[in-house]
Amino acid sequence: METGQIRLNKVTGEWVIYAPSRRKRPQDFQQNSQDSIAFKQSQNHCPFCSDNENKSEQVLLEIKNNQQDHWQTKVVANKFPALNFHENSKRSLEGIYMTMSGYGHHEVVIESPDHQKTIATLSISEIIVIIETYQKRYLKLMEDKEIMMVIIFRNHGKGAGASLRHPHSQIIASSIVPSHRRLQEAEAQRYFDHWARCVYCDILNFEINEKSRVIVENKLFVSFVPFAAEFPCEIWIMPKQHQADFGSITSEEITAFATILKDSLSRLYNKLNNPDYNYVINTAARYKAEEPQLHWYCQIRPRLTTPAGFELGSGISINPSIPEVDAAFLRD
Amino acid sequence: METGQIRLNKVTGEWVIYAPSRRKRPQDFQQNSQDSIAFKQSQNHCPFCSDNENKSEQVLLEIKNNQQDHWQTKVVANKFPALNFHENSKRSLEGIYMTMSGYGHHEVVIESPDHQKTIATLSISEIIVIIETYQKRYLKLMEDKEIMMVIIFRNHGKGAGASLRHPHSQIIASSIVPSHRRLQEAEAQRYFDHWARCVYCDILNFEINEKSRVIVENKLFVSFVPFAAEFPCEIWIMPKQHQADFGSITSEEITAFATILKDSLSRLYNKLNNPDYNYVINTAARYKAEEPQLHWYCQIRPRLTTPAGFELGSGISINPSIPEVDAAFLRD
Repeated sequence: METGQIRLNKVTGEWVIYAPSRRKRPQDFQQNSQDSIAFKQSQNHCPFCSDNENKSEQVLLEIKNNQQDHWQTKVVANKFPALNFHENSKRSLEGIYMTMSGYGHHEVVIESPDHQKTIATLSISEIIVIIETYQKRYLKLMEDKEIMMVIIFRNHGKGAGASLRHPHSQIIASSIVPSHRRLQEAEAQRYFDHWARCVYCDILNFEINEKSRVIVENKLFVSFVPFAAEFPCEIWIMPKQHQADFGSITSEEITAFATILKDSLSRLYNKLNNPDYNYVINTAARYKAEEPQLHWYCQIRPRLTTPAGFELGSGISINPSIPEVDAAFLRD
Repeated sequence: METGQIRLNKVTGEWVIYAPSRRKRPQDFQQNSQDSIAFKQSQNHCPFCSDNENKSEQVLLEIKNNQQDHWQTKVVANKFPALNFHENSKRSLEGIYMTMSGYGHHEVVIESPDHQKTIATLSISEIIVIIETYQKRYLKLMEDKEIMMVIIFRNHGKGAGASLRHPHSQIIASSIVPSHRRLQEAEAQRYFDHWARCVYCDILNFEINEKSRVIVENKLFVSFVPFAAEFPCEIWIMPKQHQADFGSITSEEITAFATILKDSLSRLYNKLNNPDYNYVINTAARYKAEEPQLHWYCQIRPRLTTPAGFELGSGISINPSIPEVDAAFLRD
């Protein structure tokens, strides 16, 4: 088996994953010839539809529906993993550069047997099962002591990098923590050292009082457009209770989160004609979950604009919308 | 006039620009209804073609061609500026958040009167004029003491965020330096403090000796695929002489840079069927140009893959190609 590799960018401190199962030849990337990564809309050959079920797929978890006659949500190993637990996590030098093999886990959460559904159109009880599944896999993956960070994310639509329409999310567990993440931890640490408070709790309380950017809230969660949103109609969903670790979410919180997630995504679905989007659950890396300065949240980013050279080069975003206007639009 | 705003993301330390001239209503971002930002291929109504010239446009610099009868390259104020020099650069607090008005400059370099050309198909003498133009505007913009950073970049094709086909690049001068940039400076500073050498010079020398990632070199520049390339066929062009500041490029270097830039982009153009790409000239922010640890370079990123939720959430890239394979493909 060809092994994967993770390489460190010496000038930015960021890691890049090179995965053999996702590899293509340079000529396959030619403009206008990307049939191989065409977005698969049809359910005829959908690998996640039960009728086309691959008996050899590695099922990691399966939740039956109420009638117990069929799976409702299941987790399978990604057939084209970015990271692979058959590899090792040993670092080494390649000349002047830091490198390691591609250790990690890459799983797919097939959210429903129904090819046509998405979070916005699933029932709350179905979404509760999805969130419970996230939590179960998160806790399971964190038992692997090599794993430093677990990223739970969803790509919806071709413009958001999805290759299949069937409703699914993904979980990647890695033994590296990127400097991107460490930078956010350092900002939160500095804020805590100054104010002795969690910066996320302060944002949360400010937004709830201020109201202009809030979309919807319930007893345990608030959904709002962040003050410095990078994308039009970007949404953050945050637990009101201080909590760094998504893994410690309670069953009451799971119900409240499922409710506000469906509500928020339904607003995008209805008001923006089912836009492409990504969401990611930002939760503490290993060893950070017990510290007081971090706070997990779900970040939803509609993909309705194209970042260009200025954004790539500077890291500064240009958002052609206004958070307060977006919030009012999504709220009403 | 409605004023722009730049807001600081309190948890990442990154800035986001909200520009009134680029503003749209949230409903205008609906999926599949983005006619307003359609890519303009045709030259019939191209605002950069001489026949459609807008007499009211603000020309900042114009270079005549050899026959002196017509402009060859010209710089105009962007009609939809991300930043505006009519505003001010005063910071203030909005509740708990840092904000400022949208001070800065945003210019367009119209590279040629010929609508159909691009860098890959222009002559070296024409590209020399473009690079000279970059340098002139860079030096002019840095005379404005409010400006902390100048970003010179090019968006080629719709997938790279371009809205017009006519060959052009852009220059944005801002009074903010993003944490993205400060992070790179800190990495270079730490390397210098350890080794007493510029990390970019070390990379340059390693790559020239190692050869496997080099695409082409001349006396003054080398073009290579970086060891931890984020994108398939990503290319860095770097001056061999240690030099932090693009503004100090000599006329001999301009010729060598124009030659290797055309060569590198022609390889992409020919081998990948004129792919969409961005390039950006990474040069030192104000006050950093005299320090020994930085080195300017041109970063070319073809846009042949779509970053998804994992990349947005973690800052880790997944590159489905291999730098050494890409370099061999582009070299041969």
